[in-house]
Amino acid sequence: MTSPVAPKPHLGIGMVGYAFMGAVHSQGWRTAARAFDLPYEPHLTAICGRDTESVRTAAGKMGWASTETDWRSLITRDDIDLVDICTPGDSHAEIAIAALDAGKHVLCEKPLANSVKDARKMADAAARNPGRIAMAGFNYRRAPALSLARRLIEDGRLGALRHVRLAYLQDWLVDPEFPLTWRLRRERAGSGALGDLGSHIIDLAQFLTGEPLAGVTALTTRFVPRRPLPSGASSDAAGSPAARGLGEVTVDDAALFTGRFPSGALASFEATRFANGRKNALRLEVNGERGSLTFDLERLNELHFYDGSAPAAESGFRRILVTEPDHPYLEGWWPPGHGLGYEHTFVHQARDLIQAVADGAQPSPSFDDGLQVQRVLAAVEESASKDSIYIPLPLYSLHDN
Amino acid sequence: MTSPVAPKPHLGIGMVGYAFMGAVHSQGWRTAARAFDLPYEPHLTAICGRDTESVRTAAGKMGWASTETDWRSLITRDDIDLVDICTPGDSHAEIAIAALDAGKHVLCEKPLANSVKDARKMADAAARNPGRIAMAGFNYRRAPALSLARRLIEDGRLGALRHVRLAYLQDWLVDPEFPLTWRLRRERAGSGALGDLGSHIIDLAQFLTGEPLAGVTALTTRFVPRRPLPSGASSDAAGSPAARGLGEVTVDDAALFTGRFPSGALASFEATRFANGRKNALRLEVNGERGSLTFDLERLNELHFYDGSAPAAESGFRRILVTEPDHPYLEGWWPPGHGLGYEHTFVHQARDLIQAVADGAQPSPSFDDGLQVQRVLAAVEESASKDSIYIPLPLYSLHDN
Amino acid sequence: MTSPVAPKPHLGIGMVGYAFMGAVHSQGWRTAARAFDLPYEPHLTAICGRDTESVRTAAGKMGWASTETDWRSLITRDDIDLVDICTPGDSHAEIAIAALDAGKHVLCEKPLANSVKDARKMADAAARNPGRIAMAGFNYRRAPALSLARRLIEDGRLGALRHVRLAYLQDWLVDPEFPLTWRLRRERAGSGALGDLGSHIIDLAQFLTGEPLAGVTALTTRFVPRRPLPSGASSDAAGSPAARGLGEVTVDDAALFTGRFPSGALASFEATRFANGRKNALRLEVNGERGSLTFDLERLNELHFYDGSAPAAESGFRRILVTEPDHPYLEGWWPPGHGLGYEHTFVHQARDLIQAVADGAQPSPSFDDGLQVQRVLAAVEESASKDSIYIPLPLYSLHDN
Amino acid sequence: MTSPVAPKPHLGIGMVGYAFMGAVHSQGWRTAARAFDLPYEPHLTAICGRDTESVRTAAGKMGWASTETDWRSLITRDDIDLVDICTPGDSHAEIAIAALDAGKHVLCEKPLANSVKDARKMADAAARNPGRIAMAGFNYRRAPALSLARRLIEDGRLGALRHVRLAYLQDWLVDPEFPLTWRLRRERAGSGALGDLGSHIIDLAQFLTGEPLAGVTALTTRFVPRRPLPSGASSDAAGSPAARGLGEVTVDDAALFTGRFPSGALASFEATRFANGRKNALRLEVNGERGSLTFDLERLNELHFYDGSAPAAESGFRRILVTEPDHPYLEGWWPPGHGLGYEHTFVHQARDLIQAVADGAQPSPSFDDGLQVQRVLAAVEESASKDSIYIPLPLYSLHDN
Repeated sequence: MTSPVAPKPHLGIGMVGYAFMGAVHSQGWRTAARAFDLPYEPHLTAICGRDTESVRTAAGKMGWASTETDWRSLITRDDIDLVDICTPGDSHAEIAIAALDAGKHVLCEKPLANSVKDARKMADAAARNPGRIAMAGFNYRRAPALSLARRLIEDGRLGALRHVRLAYLQDWLVDPEFPLTWRLRRERAGSGALGDLGSHIIDLAQFLTGEPLAGVTALTTRFVPRRPLPSGASSDAAGSPAARGLGEVTVDDAALFTGRFPSGALASFEATRFANGRKNALRLEVNGERGSLTFDLERLNELHFYDGSAPAAESGFRRILVTEPDHPYLEGWWPPGHGLGYEHTFVHQARDLIQAVADGAQPSPSFDDGLQVQRVLAAVEESASKDSIYIPLPLYSLHDN
Repeated sequence: MTSPVAPKPHLGIGMVGYAFMGAVHSQGWRTAARAFDLPYEPHLTAICGRDTESVRTAAGKMGWASTETDWRSLITRDDIDLVDICTPGDSHAEIAIAALDAGKHVLCEKPLANSVKDARKMADAAARNPGRIAMAGFNYRRAPALSLARRLIEDGRLGALRHVRLAYLQDWLVDPEFPLTWRLRRERAGSGALGDLGSHIIDLAQFLTGEPLAGVTALTTRFVPRRPLPSGASSDAAGSPAARGLGEVTVDDAALFTGRFPSGALASFEATRFANGRKNALRLEVNGERGSLTFDLERLNELHFYDGSAPAAESGFRRILVTEPDHPYLEGWWPPGHGLGYEHTFVHQARDLIQAVADGAQPSPSFDDGLQVQRVLAAVEESASKDSIYIPLPLYSLHDN
Repeated sequence: MTSPVAPKPHLGIGMVGYAFMGAVHSQGWRTAARAFDLPYEPHLTAICGRDTESVRTAAGKMGWASTETDWRSLITRDDIDLVDICTPGDSHAEIAIAALDAGKHVLCEKPLANSVKDARKMADAAARNPGRIAMAGFNYRRAPALSLARRLIEDGRLGALRHVRLAYLQDWLVDPEFPLTWRLRRERAGSGALGDLGSHIIDLAQFLTGEPLAGVTALTTRFVPRRPLPSGASSDAAGSPAARGLGEVTVDDAALFTGRFPSGALASFEATRFANGRKNALRLEVNGERGSLTFDLERLNELHFYDGSAPAAESGFRRILVTEPDHPYLEGWWPPGHGLGYEHTFVHQARDLIQAVADGAQPSPSFDDGLQVQRVLAAVEESASKDSIYIPLPLYSLHDN
Repeated sequence: MTSPVAPKPHLGIGMVGYAFMGAVHSQGWRTAARAFDLPYEPHLTAICGRDTESVRTAAGKMGWASTETDWRSLITRDDIDLVDICTPGDSHAEIAIAALDAGKHVLCEKPLANSVKDARKMADAAARNPGRIAMAGFNYRRAPALSLARRLIEDGRLGALRHVRLAYLQDWLVDPEFPLTWRLRRERAGSGALGDLGSHIIDLAQFLTGEPLAGVTALTTRFVPRRPLPSGASSDAAGSPAARGLGEVTVDDAALFTGRFPSGALASFEATRFANGRKNALRLEVNGERGSLTFDLERLNELHFYDGSAPAAESGFRRILVTEPDHPYLEGWWPPGHGLGYEHTFVHQARDLIQAVADGAQPSPSFDDGLQVQRVLAAVEESASKDSIYIPLPLYSLHDN
């Protein structure tokens, strides 16, 4: 019996929040060093939540070494190098700013904040702590198929871009009896489908094209204005004693918006939780002068590429199974054809962030990139509130890493 | 040797125009009575075009019994019962109105006209000739899969509608060297992708939902503002001696618009000739409280249906091959699985129009329905010209047949 | 009013049989000269069937100029140049041989005959009438996607072939109450799924590869051995007074076979009428050293091509929409993306046959090719009856046109 | 700072082999208790390989606590409860039998052995150690879509089965310059595509139907008989001094076989490493009297279900995204639409095996089930060597858990 080769130095992770995002982030931290050669071994040092028993149970289930019930304690622990924020959007700014100022690296779930104002403060905090890495958690950029899409576009394989169309379709609100969770309240979630789903496709549109949006016009709606209060919630949450068990939905159910890029390309966006039968359908298509690309998150190992330079008689969208050794991130995984899943985007995010910490180089998406998404979200809401009038956006230069 | 059973009485058809639309309309008239039991046998009596030799050649190729070079002669012939207008949009109104007033039934290609004003005159002519059938040529309503889609929605299988998204994507203008044909000039075509492709998806959105649009917001663009003049065209067409072989594109290359229905459902539309790799991709999805439907014209024998009433563990979009005897129009065709093509939509259009003539009952889409599409087109252009401001539409009641 | 250009000389067609195949052949003859420039205008001169009233009705519906009730009269008429045989397989040989010997060209539906012996007599009749064209009706060769597939293979784009897998799946016998039609009786149909569906995929395998099969091993089965007699049939048809309304199925319900080509490539075949949900699914895949192809008749406008010479990171099956002007037969049809249907394969068959008559050049598939398919069918049945033992086939050289 | 809830008792895992299978098994053991509530926490106690340095490196990368260089030492360690065998097939029997007799539970990669004889010895060892769990690693049974498929079939949703067709297509041998690895030598691998890929689809055919195969007929081939020796291999490996850098492939490149089930259903199988463009395409379709199912491992989150009991006009294959809480194994994972990957099948295998250890109940597939697959593999080889003659198989009763 001998020992394994000496382990890598540890990078202590402290995570705030332990719901769905916490579980999948945990899987990312746990797996990154198993799949990739990394300068640090991430260590699941502490997990933080308000309820003592719940957070202890979560720690046991998710494999964290200790727990905290106050994030202020977490961010000052010496054995924590990086704070991973998986809470609802209303607490992002306070935690992230404090963590950065406490000298920690930060990964913050998307959308970066519930307002442009908060997002700007976060970007400012990142700017005044240049030695710390601050990353926004737009994990889908790191789906291998979308990393490949970006590479093809960057290499000019699509030529001048004409159209970008993105839709993020879910259906979990179709049933009007679905209860009024925190995601349906503006004070917690900031917005509805727009911030939750729309932020992803705004980020991807800008990431894939390498261009910021120049302006948008929008329609939003609320199909089901009142919903049953969740069990255990007091009727106060709905603000009205007359509600008799119903509470008001204070965010959008769906948002449609279109926009222009500085290059002249057009973009269309749709974010909804009412697309019956669509479970997690982030679908996109990019058309350029030389070719096109399509992707659907429900088939995340595939990228479809139309190469317009082929003879017409042989042209067609080709289904690239993005599982080849030459594909982004695939050096860490299985042989061709052995597909990855949703959680792998978080493993890749962890990998790139750990590498960035070692390199001292800010990875994309930066907090500035997250702020830019927030500006677009705000412009969408402004347009929707002003008869869809076109809202121009200030020119922004995307983080380039 | 014996004779076939006595033929049906003839319905004399006179067709104006003999390009692509003329060819496929001819196939519709030629085939309708072979596939379906009809009260009349349509007779390809006369075809009309300005150039004597070209129209004689076309008549021989397409199987028409005689030719005319002036549509005014055609519409007064006693052996013509129905005038089929397959010319560019700028001549629709004049021909259609004269034909109706001359006592002929009329089928007019879409879009009905190049302006709301012209379309309204045409609808007025139809109204003052109530004994004559006047039909707008939105043939895709009669793709069996879309007829089935309408039936499912009408039967309440989707419940309250939430989203309708339609895109009509082509790519024949991707090459900037593609010449400046009449379709790229406003005075002939009225508009570009908007009128040509957008009119189809506006009509379908209203047909499928059974609702008129309540308002729209829009972006349009011209990616390639100048193109080579077609061989044989004088540079005058471009209005500028300095053009040196280039002429100005005076219509949109692409149009994005979104809208609301009176019921609260949202609609998104995209019409473009710059979607590289998309040849004739009219794609649509309808989401309702109880289910969803999708369709792609490039796979026109298929309708995908999500029945939300099935248990979650068994639910999924099912690919219905719309070739069963119980499917709309399929009683005239082949056994299950033996698919139809693009041209069959014109056979079905001819069938329903011939039946309507016999019944004396106006079929949909009526000229009023065509006028309604024209109103939406105009609202789209108005919104696009006014910073995308939302343009409400007057309430309209769709023709119900 | 002027006349169309002078019509082409007529080619008088006489058709025997007027069921499903008669209807679709009629559509082929009617349409061929409308879509393509042909040396002759095919004329639907006479249709033949045993029942006077039925055949007169069919003639009226399908647009034939006259009727006959005895094929012997039909084949001697001076105004008939070509006899088109659309009857069940047990009458093919007698009619085809008599027609050829009477100096007529012949098109005979597949499979060529119900036995190798009959097929050989037919091939002999073709051989002794070298001035007459004799063509076997394997129409699927003329689906544009499959013509394109042949072209790509012939051009070496797949390199050395390794695998050919074909399945022809239907489901119309799934219900055990489906009645005992002529297709389920050996004396009329020769065999079951094997001859009806298997003959198509055998022909295609040999057509696409350009190689005859070298031998086969097979399993066949009869899932439902007895079925209700069709209404109107006497119980004699079932050969047993005890049957009390049931009759025996005397053909296979399904056939599975595999084979080798002389080049060493392997083939697998499946023909069945019990594949629930598969309506007309003729599916095939060809794998070669340099690339692969797939096709599904339920999506007949598509060919999927894997070009193994592309870099691995960009490789994938590309969906070619076979509707480009450069694609086989597409010069006669609509713009890109406007798909064709099942019946178009018969239009193309008519086109090539009419051209062949003008050229005096035997087109493929010849009666010899039809005989070769018959040999394979016989070998499959022999193997199935002898514990699946491998049955070698004599070397055959495919007709090369 | 508090501690997580007390951890579960450990189950010590010792793994032999650390190549591809070792890596993915490691991920399974590491993740199982994070996703599922398990009676034991699996502990990655020791990994074993012959080369000291390589195994230490592997242990560090894959996260194992210690290493061994002799499996005989591994299987006697007190801290090892379960031995996981991930070596080539020629060593399975010796290790598995010794481990069982040493009182360890065993998981053995597929195929169980390289011969029926060895597989029988393994089954005997399992039988004489009834308190030990012995499981064969047919992991694909535990893809949620295939577990769901089994459930639907077991529930009678397909009715009497008619057809099962399975193909396992890969393409890594397409290039004739690909070197002669151990997988291409009979003495190590037992057979080629047949044992590697064919064993999976044989197991699945029997698992899904719940029936053992009754007999088979087969063709096998070797497309490229000689290949370059791998770098570092001596020419002795090829057994011929004249080889000069080439060595003989001594296993099949592809195997086609068909078979019958006792119920009368037919099965067809294809296993190949020469299907250009198919990376890991395990595809299957099952047709029954009441419905059908299809699956493709390249889209492993989807099951397509045709429910024949729906009205014909609404019937179609529905794409079930197997990511709902009600689907097998999904209670441990993400919300609907957030797909899983290849490795999750190993997590599920680990889960079920750990549970089985706690329950003392042998899970399927047992070593007896693995032996049954071996019998079919042997029958395929026998048929292929005897002119494809049908080889009946003894009746076997599948393990029912």
